Amino acid sequence: MTNLKVELLFITPQAELLIENVGRTSYLSFPKQQAGSEKNFIRMLLRNEHHSVLEHAYATFRIAGVSRACTHQLVRHRLCSFIQQSQRYVDEKDFRYIEPESIKANAEAHAMFTEFMEQARAIYTKLQGMKIRKEDARYVLPNATESQIVVSANFREWRHIIGLRGSPQSQWEIRRLAIAVLKILKEHAPTVFADFQVDEEKEVINKLKI
Amino acid sequence: MTNLKVELLFITPQAELLIENVGRTSYLSFPKQQAGSEKNFIRMLLRNEHHSVLEHAYATFRIAGVSRACTHQLVRHRLCSFIQQSQRYVDEKDFRYIEPESIKANAEAHAMFTEFMEQARAIYTKLQGMKIRKEDARYVLPNATESQIVVSANFREWRHIIGLRGSPQSQWEIRRLAIAVLKILKEHAPTVFADFQVDEEKEVINKLKI
Amino acid sequence: MTNLKVELLFITPQAELLIENVGRTSYLSFPKQQAGSEKNFIRMLLRNEHHSVLEHAYATFRIAGVSRACTHQLVRHRLCSFIQQSQRYVDEKDFRYIEPESIKANAEAHAMFTEFMEQARAIYTKLQGMKIRKEDARYVLPNATESQIVVSANFREWRHIIGLRGSPQSQWEIRRLAIAVLKILKEHAPTVFADFQVDEEKEVINKLKI
Amino acid sequence: MTNLKVELLFITPQAELLIENVGRTSYLSFPKQQAGSEKNFIRMLLRNEHHSVLEHAYATFRIAGVSRACTHQLVRHRLCSFIQQSQRYVDEKDFRYIEPESIKANAEAHAMFTEFMEQARAIYTKLQGMKIRKEDARYVLPNATESQIVVSANFREWRHIIGLRGSPQSQWEIRRLAIAVLKILKEHAPTVFADFQVDEEKEVINKLKI
Repeated sequence: MTNLKVELLFITPQAELLIENVGRTSYLSFPKQQAGSEKNFIRMLLRNEHHSVLEHAYATFRIAGVSRACTHQLVRHRLCSFIQQSQRYVDEKDFRYIEPESIKANAEAHAMFTEFMEQARAIYTKLQGMKIRKEDARYVLPNATESQIVVSANFREWRHIIGLRGSPQSQWEIRRLAIAVLKILKEHAPTVFADFQVDEEKEVINKLKI
Repeated sequence: MTNLKVELLFITPQAELLIENVGRTSYLSFPKQQAGSEKNFIRMLLRNEHHSVLEHAYATFRIAGVSRACTHQLVRHRLCSFIQQSQRYVDEKDFRYIEPESIKANAEAHAMFTEFMEQARAIYTKLQGMKIRKEDARYVLPNATESQIVVSANFREWRHIIGLRGSPQSQWEIRRLAIAVLKILKEHAPTVFADFQVDEEKEVINKLKI
Repeated sequence: MTNLKVELLFITPQAELLIENVGRTSYLSFPKQQAGSEKNFIRMLLRNEHHSVLEHAYATFRIAGVSRACTHQLVRHRLCSFIQQSQRYVDEKDFRYIEPESIKANAEAHAMFTEFMEQARAIYTKLQGMKIRKEDARYVLPNATESQIVVSANFREWRHIIGLRGSPQSQWEIRRLAIAVLKILKEHAPTVFADFQVDEEKEVINKLKI
Repeated sequence: MTNLKVELLFITPQAELLIENVGRTSYLSFPKQQAGSEKNFIRMLLRNEHHSVLEHAYATFRIAGVSRACTHQLVRHRLCSFIQQSQRYVDEKDFRYIEPESIKANAEAHAMFTEFMEQARAIYTKLQGMKIRKEDARYVLPNATESQIVVSANFREWRHIIGLRGSPQSQWEIRRLAIAVLKILKEHAPTVFADFQVDEEKEVINKLKI
């Protein structure tokens, strides 16, 4: 139903150890490091809202199968770095699209939506045949058009995105993206993201007290 | 042809005087200020690339009559602050759209484009009639759909945007926006933006040596 | 005792009206604006944590009579713009200094501290007499040395600084600075900063529930 | 003479390959990747000033043996993340210090400087003996006092820092720091930093045309 694909391109190796190592610089308290001590150190950081230490670990994701509606929201996060598939340079004749479930669930709406997408493709293709450049032909492409985007951010910023975009007020498409990102980050840095819990049924992220 | 409307909501009053006043803090050279001295001071800043002083003056614009294609580019400028008309909350039944000139200039393309926009409106309206929420119905809206956005930035960032988006490599819609912004800024802070010159015929911004 | 001087160089005129005007862009709900409506609008923003709207109003302060210890903390706020008196370029022979109250309150400590400051001045002056450049002579200047700095930030960032630096955990010098800034901002934008209250006796800022 | 120690804590593994992989997203031109193609791809990015792609690789350094004068400059780079040894929490009785060469080269200046540093230590220690807290006792510590700081930044920002702080106008201490950082980055990402060349004799960084 959704084509969402979230691929981890890069994450700071042993991120939690690095966070402790960096964070102890304020106090020059390096001798306190020992096997497993990073867990309590990170919990202390989160409790005391010393989030700046979390900025020293990073993750980069390649995100595909999201609509341009979704990426227009995503790129509003100004502390991330983005590289996005360009509709000025990439030929979109074979574009795929995201169909909201509320539309898919209604047979009439679904038929109308699907037909409209194919019309968009036909018009786009004809405009190109008339020597209209891609950067102008794209004006007919709908918000539903799929895009691909690479996003890099530090852990502090990923926590911010996950908290904001995983909440019930958030739109379903970016919420699913936040959930997919969170699941991957939890594998690599379980303590840093421990207070975010996915509710699979409601497709939302809950924030626990630390 | 274009519906672009750029309205200055706010600009630092007497911005050039403030820039000199702030900039002299590094050297505590306040006694050198006199009537008109801000001109030479600002030229010195630009020559020496001391752009950080320009961050202390700001301008806020309300921009209407631009496509969502254009705003998706604009919001990539991460040092700006943005508030944009939301397609989740605003009913777009009466949406207006931007038609590229290359399409308008071709009668067949123009007819196709115009008809397609009206189809988009019809589908959007029908989806709403089927109780599909605005946030899902908007997936059919094309890139051409007009949007309104407020942008605030300091003068250093406006110089960056104008230089990048006014260049010949830039897309025509955001280039026109850059030109409109530049013209207004030149009225209020002529020295700060003196090295950017609009070529009206080619609709590009040239950067002069300082 | 403290030489702190905080001067407002610039603030967005009628900032609260501008915030409402900008903020209504998301919903195109401009007709709801009327005399005094900005108050409730801003309270709604704060309650819902829509802080991004507050980024469209700015304030610039000239801060004098603070130690270099204090400015080293202050410049860590990365969303501000700063211009600071340079110890590379300004002759510091007549430097003034900040004496902590805990030192002043102890006659012996006070005498020792004062004498040491004069020694620092003497050494600095002698080094200059030996043709040591200011940028090297400054290595003897103590943290207590006064500095002057101009800081610009938007209201969202000022709220962040005030909350962080006005708290009891914060150091007394930057806490006093936060209090002085808050008092001025409250005069110009009382609703935006209404939830921050100065406790004059304890010299801290309390944050009320909105 | 200088105690500068720059330790690489972390760098994106195979950063240049990642940069090509990320950068090709704009054009979906992944099939063009082959052994060694990242070199030409990165040169193209630099020539065209597509620096945003360089933001997806990061490096973190632990920097020790630098003065507080130097770190006060360094923390002005607002796109970095910092964690610094705190003079509020770390006991500085055994502080080490940076002595500028211009002082060391002059026997009289050197004697004066050294003696003054020991006086600073003595006063600091006595103040602590009088129950003055570290956060207040530190007001006597000179700019020369050594500090330790961890800095993380992406490659675009490291290029900016290296260009600015390695230039002849820059102060000697931060210039040496820029040189040390550059040498390490060149080992791991030689193409990204190829246009910066260290002049060992003059201790400056020259920027070549690309």
